[in-house]
Amino acid sequence: MHGPAPAARGRLSTAAHNEKNRRPVSMTEINPDRLWATLQASAEIGRWLPPGLQRLALSDADRDMRDTFCGWCRQSGYSVRVDQVGNIFARRDGTEEIEPVLVGSHLDTQVAGGRYDGILGVLSGLEVLRFLDDSGARTRRPVEVVSWSNEEGARFSPPMLGSAAYAGALPLHEALATKDDADRSFGDELVRIGYAGTEPVPGPRPSAYFELHIEQDDFLDRSGINLGIVTAARSVRGFLLKLTGETSHSGATPMRRRRDAFIGAAELAVALDAMVRTDGDDVRGSVPRIDVWPNRPGIVPGEATLTFDFRHGDPSALESMLRRVEEIVADICERRQLSCSWLRSWRFGEEIAFDAGLAATARQAAADLGIATADMASWAGHDAYWLATIAPALILFTPCVGGVSHNEKEDIEFDRVIHGVSVLARSVLLAANR
Amino acid sequence: MHGPAPAARGRLSTAAHNEKNRRPVSMTEINPDRLWATLQASAEIGRWLPPGLQRLALSDADRDMRDTFCGWCRQSGYSVRVDQVGNIFARRDGTEEIEPVLVGSHLDTQVAGGRYDGILGVLSGLEVLRFLDDSGARTRRPVEVVSWSNEEGARFSPPMLGSAAYAGALPLHEALATKDDADRSFGDELVRIGYAGTEPVPGPRPSAYFELHIEQDDFLDRSGINLGIVTAARSVRGFLLKLTGETSHSGATPMRRRRDAFIGAAELAVALDAMVRTDGDDVRGSVPRIDVWPNRPGIVPGEATLTFDFRHGDPSALESMLRRVEEIVADICERRQLSCSWLRSWRFGEEIAFDAGLAATARQAAADLGIATADMASWAGHDAYWLATIAPALILFTPCVGGVSHNEKEDIEFDRVIHGVSVLARSVLLAANR
Repeated sequence: MHGPAPAARGRLSTAAHNEKNRRPVSMTEINPDRLWATLQASAEIGRWLPPGLQRLALSDADRDMRDTFCGWCRQSGYSVRVDQVGNIFARRDGTEEIEPVLVGSHLDTQVAGGRYDGILGVLSGLEVLRFLDDSGARTRRPVEVVSWSNEEGARFSPPMLGSAAYAGALPLHEALATKDDADRSFGDELVRIGYAGTEPVPGPRPSAYFELHIEQDDFLDRSGINLGIVTAARSVRGFLLKLTGETSHSGATPMRRRRDAFIGAAELAVALDAMVRTDGDDVRGSVPRIDVWPNRPGIVPGEATLTFDFRHGDPSALESMLRRVEEIVADICERRQLSCSWLRSWRFGEEIAFDAGLAATARQAAADLGIATADMASWAGHDAYWLATIAPALILFTPCVGGVSHNEKEDIEFDRVIHGVSVLARSVLLAANR
Repeated sequence: MHGPAPAARGRLSTAAHNEKNRRPVSMTEINPDRLWATLQASAEIGRWLPPGLQRLALSDADRDMRDTFCGWCRQSGYSVRVDQVGNIFARRDGTEEIEPVLVGSHLDTQVAGGRYDGILGVLSGLEVLRFLDDSGARTRRPVEVVSWSNEEGARFSPPMLGSAAYAGALPLHEALATKDDADRSFGDELVRIGYAGTEPVPGPRPSAYFELHIEQDDFLDRSGINLGIVTAARSVRGFLLKLTGETSHSGATPMRRRRDAFIGAAELAVALDAMVRTDGDDVRGSVPRIDVWPNRPGIVPGEATLTFDFRHGDPSALESMLRRVEEIVADICERRQLSCSWLRSWRFGEEIAFDAGLAATARQAAADLGIATADMASWAGHDAYWLATIAPALILFTPCVGGVSHNEKEDIEFDRVIHGVSVLARSVLLAANR
């Protein structure tokens, strides 16, 4: 569904919900209509494979969305700053000039993206600021909503580029020098769309960072629980591996003389897939990208470059998986007379600790509102991973229909999501007065 | 090696060779220096990964080579015609206005092409015309050297496009509408490079067609025999197959919920490779091209489109191979919840009969010159396949070093190749007086 029916779209009272749960709570409510309106406006910017979006980082569509978002923030009276990698911060002042509470996510999408991945987190953050205005709250700390640049990594690699640079994990010059497939640099494109800001990167540590995000799997959707408190990040190892063989005639060359880099890569992909299908839902892996050269009829491929990763619920399992992958690669290279270069590797999730204090705050807020929660782990990387390295950070998961994401059909049941946004608002309010 | 050392590059006398073989033959010789000079000039046009070439059909480099070739032909006094698909014909008149003997091949190359594939055949054809001039021969039939457009299919699919159109197997409008990956049409590019000629396509039947070509495998190179008489064409079945799954998050989606089109394609590629490695050198197959969508980090591929083919020494084996491939595809699609579309298929080689009379002529010419030959089959498609459907046609194979082709390191031992060119010249002379 695409949100509540008009009749149901009036202010959805968290108090009403609480009555149902027999736990009366008195608080100012967030405004579902207002949040829904921003989500709907966003869903019009970069439409592609409707109802999906293609709003790649620093594209024209991304610029249009940024302009729209900044406009909303300024109209609501929040001061907007942009940093050197294009991260956008909109500030609602506190009573003291101290570290703010930061809340947000990203507005860019995948190539075949949905309307809520990241977007829901940023626009919920904006709704939280507006909720604070509605309630006349004067918070001790400033509260800022943030939109991080290039979370998806669909155009510029690595993903989570903006938050990594903010957290000091990616040097500014490297971030700006990152190129897309058409050889355009992140820095040049930032200038082109008018979002090469002046706020320094790395940025200041916030007192807390909250990120609300759709789960992208179907646990919440199936269980009927409306809010996940993310207490752990699954460990990920990613690799860019190039296999090199030799081009030759695809008809005239006998099989025994071929050094086919693509077939070697295909064999590796199939072996990886088999490896990660042995342990139920606790292990995952994929080959999301392969580039073959020359990739033309009539010619045996001479090079194949794969991007692949694997993830495990038990971080200690990753080392043995890596050893196994290295054995598979060595075996393939020997049998098929290929050479290999491990061009790049990355890892995340292993040392991520989300903040127990913020998790307790969120659980308390949920309890106050009579909302059930479940502790969960995140399999996907999020900007909060980088923020967690410099500040207390927490991710809140809300359900998405069928767990479908990174797909144009990604959808939410808005009535269910409202619960998470309410908990977010209350949690931010609590954190901003500490 | 890149041709004979300068001292050895003087006229390589077939008579001298015959002396060595104790079979004195008196005839005018081809001019190895002159042929070598044209090969060297060609090797400068479109240099890429030296000593290789990238002279894709209708590229600027292809135009430059065409201009150079036409210049040589005109300087030697041959009239040049260009047909509606850009095939170039240079004519040495006969004493009668009857069907000419045609001799040639192609001047375009693969993405990572060598200096001899096709090129040797065209420039040997030019040398044959010049040899006829040198010898003062007046032939009954005209003799024409031809350069066919887009034999490789590296830029415009299908390969052998020019000869297919000439032979009436590909309608003119389809040939002109063919597009490259950048969506430029064959017809537009032909106009752009100035080779949209007026000679009608399909073209007139020649009395005979000869094509000299490097073997692209290593039988001749290893055996020490310098000339292969191609008496058979291996049968080929080719396919363009699209597998469709569903994009999803490459981390958050459990394996059981994935519909990964690339892994399905990889499994098919590995199964195909295993299938064609069961029968020695008598069966071959490859997946030269794969296009994955969206092919981005973080997203499980939703589509994978493969170009693949398989070839067998026994044409009757192809049907059972196709059944087996269909079973493999069906099994993969069922297990991985993919759908498939067979977008295109092609076959060639099955009904090709090279001309026994021309083969006898070539054997006689070789015997006259004291040159050993071997009857062979061709695994690769050549323009002669299409010419064989409208006229007596014959391919002559010459050795290439290590059987390496469709690779920038492709090379020849020029001293060995000269034998084949001499047989070609003598065969054309015989055929032109029939």
